Formats: sequence, C-alpha cells, structure tokens
Amino acid sequence: MYIETPSKKGWRSKIFKIIYHADTPAGKWFDIILIVFIILSVLTIILDSVNDLHLNYGDILKIAEWFFTLVFTLEYILRLVSIRRPMKYVFSFFGIVDILSILPTYLAYFFVGAQQLLVIRILRILRVFRVLKLVQYTHQAQLLTNSIKNSRHKIFVFFFFIFTVLIIFGSLMYLIEGPENGFTSIPHGIYWAVVTLTTVGYGDIAPHTVLGRMVASLIMLTGYSIIAVPTGIFTSELSREVQRNRDKSRVCKTCNLAGHTQAAVFCRRCGEALNVE
Amino acid sequence: MYIETPSKKGWRSKIFKIIYHADTPAGKWFDIILIVFIILSVLTIILDSVNDLHLNYGDILKIAEWFFTLVFTLEYILRLVSIRRPMKYVFSFFGIVDILSILPTYLAYFFVGAQQLLVIRILRILRVFRVLKLVQYTHQAQLLTNSIKNSRHKIFVFFFFIFTVLIIFGSLMYLIEGPENGFTSIPHGIYWAVVTLTTVGYGDIAPHTVLGRMVASLIMLTGYSIIAVPTGIFTSELSREVQRNRDKSRVCKTCNLAGHTQAAVFCRRCGEALNVE
Amino acid sequence: MYIETPSKKGWRSKIFKIIYHADTPAGKWFDIILIVFIILSVLTIILDSVNDLHLNYGDILKIAEWFFTLVFTLEYILRLVSIRRPMKYVFSFFGIVDILSILPTYLAYFFVGAQQLLVIRILRILRVFRVLKLVQYTHQAQLLTNSIKNSRHKIFVFFFFIFTVLIIFGSLMYLIEGPENGFTSIPHGIYWAVVTLTTVGYGDIAPHTVLGRMVASLIMLTGYSIIAVPTGIFTSELSREVQRNRDKSRVCKTCNLAGHTQAAVFCRRCGEALNVE
Amino acid sequence: MYIETPSKKGWRSKIFKIIYHADTPAGKWFDIILIVFIILSVLTIILDSVNDLHLNYGDILKIAEWFFTLVFTLEYILRLVSIRRPMKYVFSFFGIVDILSILPTYLAYFFVGAQQLLVIRILRILRVFRVLKLVQYTHQAQLLTNSIKNSRHKIFVFFFFIFTVLIIFGSLMYLIEGPENGFTSIPHGIYWAVVTLTTVGYGDIAPHTVLGRMVASLIMLTGYSIIAVPTGIFTSELSREVQRNRDKSRVCKTCNLAGHTQAAVFCRRCGEALNVE
Repeated sequence: MYIETPSKKGWRSKIFKIIYHADTPAGKWFDIILIVFIILSVLTIILDSVNDLHLNYGDILKIAEWFFTLVFTLEYILRLVSIRRPMKYVFSFFGIVDILSILPTYLAYFFVGAQQLLVIRILRILRVFRVLKLVQYTHQAQLLTNSIKNSRHKIFVFFFFIFTVLIIFGSLMYLIEGPENGFTSIPHGIYWAVVTLTTVGYGDIAPHTVLGRMVASLIMLTGYSIIAVPTGIFTSELSREVQRNRDKSRVCKTCNLAGHTQAAVFCRRCGEALNVE
Repeated sequence: MYIETPSKKGWRSKIFKIIYHADTPAGKWFDIILIVFIILSVLTIILDSVNDLHLNYGDILKIAEWFFTLVFTLEYILRLVSIRRPMKYVFSFFGIVDILSILPTYLAYFFVGAQQLLVIRILRILRVFRVLKLVQYTHQAQLLTNSIKNSRHKIFVFFFFIFTVLIIFGSLMYLIEGPENGFTSIPHGIYWAVVTLTTVGYGDIAPHTVLGRMVASLIMLTGYSIIAVPTGIFTSELSREVQRNRDKSRVCKTCNLAGHTQAAVFCRRCGEALNVE
Repeated sequence: MYIETPSKKGWRSKIFKIIYHADTPAGKWFDIILIVFIILSVLTIILDSVNDLHLNYGDILKIAEWFFTLVFTLEYILRLVSIRRPMKYVFSFFGIVDILSILPTYLAYFFVGAQQLLVIRILRILRVFRVLKLVQYTHQAQLLTNSIKNSRHKIFVFFFFIFTVLIIFGSLMYLIEGPENGFTSIPHGIYWAVVTLTTVGYGDIAPHTVLGRMVASLIMLTGYSIIAVPTGIFTSELSREVQRNRDKSRVCKTCNLAGHTQAAVFCRRCGEALNVE
Repeated sequence: MYIETPSKKGWRSKIFKIIYHADTPAGKWFDIILIVFIILSVLTIILDSVNDLHLNYGDILKIAEWFFTLVFTLEYILRLVSIRRPMKYVFSFFGIVDILSILPTYLAYFFVGAQQLLVIRILRILRVFRVLKLVQYTHQAQLLTNSIKNSRHKIFVFFFFIFTVLIIFGSLMYLIEGPENGFTSIPHGIYWAVVTLTTVGYGDIAPHTVLGRMVASLIMLTGYSIIAVPTGIFTSELSREVQRNRDKSRVCKTCNLAGHTQAAVFCRRCGEALNVE
C-alpha cells in the first residue's frame, strides 16, 4: 500500500518518517516499541478474560488497559496528523482496526458491555506482520506467499472439490443416520463431514448405523489421502520458486550469462569467477 | 463425452448450442444462470432440513422448491428435444441425476415420503464441474487430474496395503479387547482401525487393555507416518507433470527445438529469441 | 525366496509348476482362484464375528468354514508333496501361516475355544501380496518399496527422535497432571503422548491443568509440523527413484549414450531416433 | 561441543579417551554399555510408575534403582576426574542432566518426596543421541538437521502466522461460544484452537452454536490445508540438500571438475571414468 508523503519540511514530516518508514534508527525503534506494546496489550486482554485473574488482578489489568488505550490513542492521532491524506488511512484496513482497538475503552463509560468489544484489539497483532515486512524475513515470507499465490488456481479447484464432497457426504449421512443419531439437519451433517474429512474427529457426533460407519470410513480414507493434493501443489510450487530464485542468483556478473549449474565455479562463457552462493 | 449435434437449422439447433455449448455469449449466460439456480436449489434443500427453518419458513421454501422443480423440468425438456439422440442423454450419468432431481417433488403428490428423496437434487451440484470445465481453470484441473491418473497404479498398491493393515489390525484388536471394551465384532474392529489409522480418532471406541493400547500406538504411528506415501506419490507426479508442461512451452518458435532450460534466452540451435514464460 | 524345483518329470512336477509358478495359464488360474478363496474365507470369519449374523446364519458360515478348511488342507498337502524340500516350506513364514489357518477348525473337536484361533486365517490375505507380485503392479510396488528401503536410515533417525519425544513428554505429563486427571502412570502418559502427537486425539485422556494444556499444545504443534519430516524424506527419495528410472529409459539404442533430456528426440551423439517414452 | 583433553599421560588420560572418545574399541564398548544402562534405568522408572508393578515388584525395582544410581555416580566421578576442566562439564547441559539423574535417590534419605524427581533421569536418554552421533547414522541425521536448519527462517514465518491465527480464532470463539459452552476464557479458546488446527480434536471442548461451528469448520479446513506449508518447506529443502550432496560426489577424481550429471560415465573435461555411485 502506497501512502503519500506530506510536505518535506516541519515536524509533521519528521513524525511521518518515524511512524510510516522503518529505514531510520528512530523509525526502527518506533516499530519495535509498537510491537512490544501491541503484544503486551493483547496479553492484558487474554489474561483479563481468565476469571480468577480478573477477580484478583482486575485493577492492575484495568490500569494497563487504560495505559495502552491512551498510548494507542496518541499513536492514532500522530498517524492522522502526520499523513497528507488522513482519510485514506482512516478507511484503510489497519486504520479501522486501529480505531476499533481504542474506542471500546471510551465507550464503556456510556454503554454497559462496550468493554466486551475490546477483544477486537487482538486484531492489532496483525500489524506485527506489516512491521516485520519492513525488517527481516522479507525474503522468506515472500517466497512462501509467492508459492501460495502461484498455486491459488490449483488450490481453488481443490477446495471446490472438497466443498462438493462435504455437501454430498453431509446430506448422505443425514439421510442414513438421521436425527436420532445426532445428524439433526444437513448443515449438521456437513459440519460432521468437515470434522471427519479434516481428521479432527471430536466425537461429539459419530455414526452409529452399519451403513453410516461404512460411509464414514470412506470419507475418512478420502480425507486421509487427499491431503496429499494441497501438499503436492504447494511443495511443487515452492521447489520451483526456490529453483527460479537460485537460477537468478547464478548469473555471471561480467557477461550476464544466466543459468549456471550449482556446481559451476567459473562462467562457462567468459570464464570469470561466479559468486558462490 | 461426445454428444451429437442435431440438424444445423431451426430453433432446436439454436437451443442445442445454448445448452450444450459454451462458446457463444448466450451459452455462457445459460451456464452461469444454471449454476446459480443449482446452488440456490441446493441451498433451499439444506435450509429446509433444519427443523427451525422448516417450521417458520416452510411455505417460502416450498414455493422455492416448486420454482426450481419447474425450471429444471423445463431445462430437462429442452435438453431432451434439442439433442438428436435423446436416449443417449437420458441414460447418461447427468441425465439420470437431472431426472432424479425433479421427480421427487411430483411423486410427493402420490406417495408420502417421496419428498425425502429430493435430497438427491444435491447431486446436481456436480454439474458445476462440467460447466467449469468449459470456462476457466481447465488447465489447472487437468494438471491435477493428470497427476492423479498417472499415480493411480502406485495409489492402488498403497490402498491395497492399507486395507490389509486395517483387516489384520481390526481382527487383532477384536481378539485383544473383545466385546466388553466396545470391539463387539471384527467389522467394528476394522471401523475402529480406520478411525485410528486416518488419525480421526472419535473416541467412541478406544482401547482399554495394556496390550490393546500398545497395538493401538503401533497403528497410530503407522498411520501418522505412511501418510507420507500418498503425499510423496502425488507430489513427485505433479512436479513431473508441471515440469513436462513447462518443457513443452520452452519450444523455439523458429526451428521447433524443444527442451531449452528455464534460464535460456535464445534458442541453442538457431539463435532466435525464445518467448519468455 | 527361492524355492527349489522337484525332479522335472511326473505329476509332482506339474503340480509344482501350477502352484509355485505363475507363468503358465494353469498357474495363473490357480493364483486367481486362490485369491478368491482366501478373500471369501476371510469374509466368512469377519461376518461370523458379528453376533446377529452368527445367530441367524451360523450354520451356513460353519459349512463355509469347513469347505475352506478342506480346500486349504488340500492346497497345503499339494504344496508339501510337490516341492523337493518340504521342510523349507513348512518353516517359511507362509508355511506357518498356511498351517495355522487350517489347524483351528480341526482342533475345535478336541479343545473348546480353539475355534477362536481361526481368526489367524485372516493373515492368509498376505499371500495376495505374493501372488500380485507375480502378476501386475510389480514395477510400481517396487518403486515404492525401493524408496522406502532407501530412506530407511533417515526414517530410523526420525523414529528414534519421536520415541525420545514421546517418553520425555509422557513422563512430563505424568508429573504435571498426575493420576487424578487420568495420567495414572508413565506408560499411560506415553500412550496419551502417542495419541496426541499423531493427532489422533481420542479424548479419553486429556489434560485439565493449565500447565498440562500448555505442554499438550506444544506436543500437538510438534506432531503437526514434524509430519513434514517423513513426508519430505519419502517424497525426495521417490522423486529421485522415479528420475533414476526415467534416466535409464532415455538411453540411445544405437550408441548406448545415456542421460538424454525428456525433450530430446534424437541421440545427441549419433543422431539416431530415441524411443519416445 | 569441544572438550579439552587432559595431559597425555597417566590413567586419567586413558579414562578420558574411553569416556569422551569413541574411536577406540574400549570407547565403543563404553558407549554401548552406557546406552544399555540408560535404557534399562529409564525402563525401571517407567515400570515403577505403574501402581500394580510398584506394589508387587517394588523391592526389585528399588534395588535396580540403587544399582543404576551407583553406576551413574561412578560414571559421573570418572567424567569429573578425567577431564582437565571439570567445571566446564559440570555446567554443560549433559553435566546438569547427569547430576540431576543421580541426586534424587540420595536426597530421598533426607527429604520425603525427593524420590519423585527421579523421573528426571529419563532425560538421560538424550545422551543416546550424543553417542549415536559418534557411530552410525551421522550422515543421515546431518542431512535432516541441515535441512531443518536451512528452512528455519521459513518455518519461523510459518509459526508466527500460526500463532496469530490461533490467538485471533481463540478470542473469536470465546466471544461466540462463551463460558456456557466450555470456552471459559481466551486461553481456553486458544487451547481449543490448537487442538482443532492441529486436527487432534479431543472433543473435551467443542462448539455448540451455529456460528461457532461455522468458524470451527473454517479453522479445521485451514489447519487441514496449511499442513502443506511446513511439509513443502522441508521437502523442497531436503531435496535440495540431497541434490547438493550428490553433486559433490560426482566430482572427477582426475581433474576435480564437479557437477557431472547422474547419467555421465566419463568426465566431460578430461575424459577419465567417473566413479559410479
């Protein structure tokens, strides 16, 4: 997502660089502190949801919640004033997450239960991905997402097949087992089919008739073996992506001849030494 | 499946083109509308199976059911009259699914319970596959099905092995655990073996004796590790298929020499530039 | 397993060829009939273990059992008399399975309960593998077993690691959860660890303490991700095996030059046409 | 881990060689006996944790425990006196495991319950890995660990993604299902998400509301398909590692040219015969 820079001079420009860029020391520190604060604030919410901790340490957690709310409010205001077109930020995905993660604390003054919505703040953890993008692991994450992107058509075909299987088997089990065995409706049957095909197998709904168990065995074996398909798709795509990447890096710096084998030490055309990987 | 065209002139020929072909705008629209109708009709059946919805919205769902039945009846008649050899369609897989998906609504007038059979209509969702075949994703789906076809012999050997393991372990557990622990017969034992080997693990039948648990651990570890086999088979086959496909596309347009490496920019025989992928 | 032939002449030689070889029409028919009989006899035992069927069709199943016992006894005697060194057959794996699969029916006359041991006959299904070996699917099965053989050292290292993980986590959970939560002993803990690591998850034993659930989460994520290891080992080995196999088949028939690429049509040395795969 | 040798002469030097090296016959025997003793002592602890065995064979197991404690004490003293810088060993990982595995037996004289800590001795099984390292399987284990090391960045990105998914889905289910359906807190929800995403599926906590089951289906399908990611990462890395390894072994002994194809029989530069793998 490209975000326009404000006028080059003034304090707003400086803040903009710190908040939105990560190539200055100040920008890096800002990102690191932000990640720490996000993780701590998420932890606060997680701990507060535990009844025992809420009863005993409720006050401390309340203070922490207010502290993080104020910090994030400040961050939100700074993001707003430092950018040239604030509306673009406000209606971006992260802009919405950012405002939703601070509002509930304030709303709790006026509406009972608004507190509950604070859980939305957990979504802020996604910002860690954005920040990480700027620092390390870029290359590896890109390899993975590229491979997933390249295999999206195959994955789509696969999932379309899976959904058809789920609907047909779910309906079949509803007919075979019926409400008296826990398959009270077709959606229930489909839910059971998901639980079974993915090999999760809670056991809250399970077939009891002979025919039902035979069909269930069929869907289990199907689920067990077709897991090979997404794995195969992704593995083959990733191998290819890694290969392509490596091919790129085996280019002669002198004459630009590409496609040297991994074992090659010198360029096969001009004889210059290749950079060893 | 090759379906013969009717005489080239007249309205029947026009309808035939719309229904059975997809290369005209009208044919494409027919396919899209058909898919929408099939999905909506399947949704109607799924929702109607939920007791609450059946009680509250039963009338609307009934009307929807009749609407789709009439539309599909019309489609069936058009398919019948527009094709030159109707019997070939009637007794094809989709012909049977099509008639079975409209009959129950009519039969419900004469027989109580015929309504139940309407669930068969869900099978019509398979027609979406046929339609998709004509449009997009053809290539990707073909890659996948080719890979599965090529690995069918290996998969067969694998499943034969699995079945033998299931029968032997199922019988063994019947002997070890016996009816008092839920293993009331060998088929029950085999069902348990399927549930365990595929790592579904409902927990409705579980070993209780020490020996039984040791054998169960063995079958679990077997199931956990031999999942590598179908995955390996499919992955290796898919990689090869993708490779073969790519090799084909690296053919020199000038001299038809195939088999250029991915890094090649010029044909290694005639020196013409290759199309970059 | 190499089995010596008897003297070339006489009826024993003929029977030997039919029973032990599969390259004559009679030998092939013998194998096919044997497989059918084995599968039917296994089916008889499986059905007889179901209480309802035993009560209603016990007599028919009893007759079938006696029929198969007599047929298999005849087969055993023929195998014995037609081979030159009968003792080698008697003490081979299949020789022992063969005698154990007929004895229980006879023993049931003298000892109550000997009938139970008839389940051993199910092991005869393994003979189907031997027979299949002689006919079809040889090549594919060999590819798979070769790949498994080649990866056995890596698989061994993997399983050694798994066992260590199971013992350490099983003991840990015994300490953390204790007998009051179902972890009554370390073997129980190890059994639970197997059920969890393999992602079977019966739910008959499950952690209840906070620490126990954290450790359980760790072992689940471990099990979920290290399944990549056997899959990776087998896939890489199978790809290599398939590749090696294909390389062999791309040899020029004229000058014996090997290693032609898949896209090559003519030998790159002598120019003769290569056999297309 | 490099451990310094003591002065070359004297009995301490001899003991050092036996204990810390494995290239002499005595050193090999020491390692084998140590592994046997460790496995037997671990077995003693496992068996002693079973109530029935503790009550009936408690005395024998007690004697075995003391025997192993004394043997391991002797081993610990020998390790201590034979090495030049004992403190380095004492504070190494194995040094700590070694002392912790003998202390509890002695402490049980003074403190009630110290006996319980004996389970720590199970960790000594890890020493088997160290010993194995010196003998066989080195190469295979190294291939595996190298592949894991090389893919650690990708695996890290994957696990970071998994943790985010777990936290978000765990919180979501806590909001949707609430304490009345077993989701008493967010950590509980996250635990359930781990159990579900890894396809373990105990069934002790399971969704009951319609929305909850839809979200659960989503997380199941996610878990079912993203298992492809670590598998793909590891498989592609292992294939590459194996390939690289093989490339190394295809080096011409005469002119040192590397990178011959598998099919090559003669060096492509100097024409000398290559060693066939």
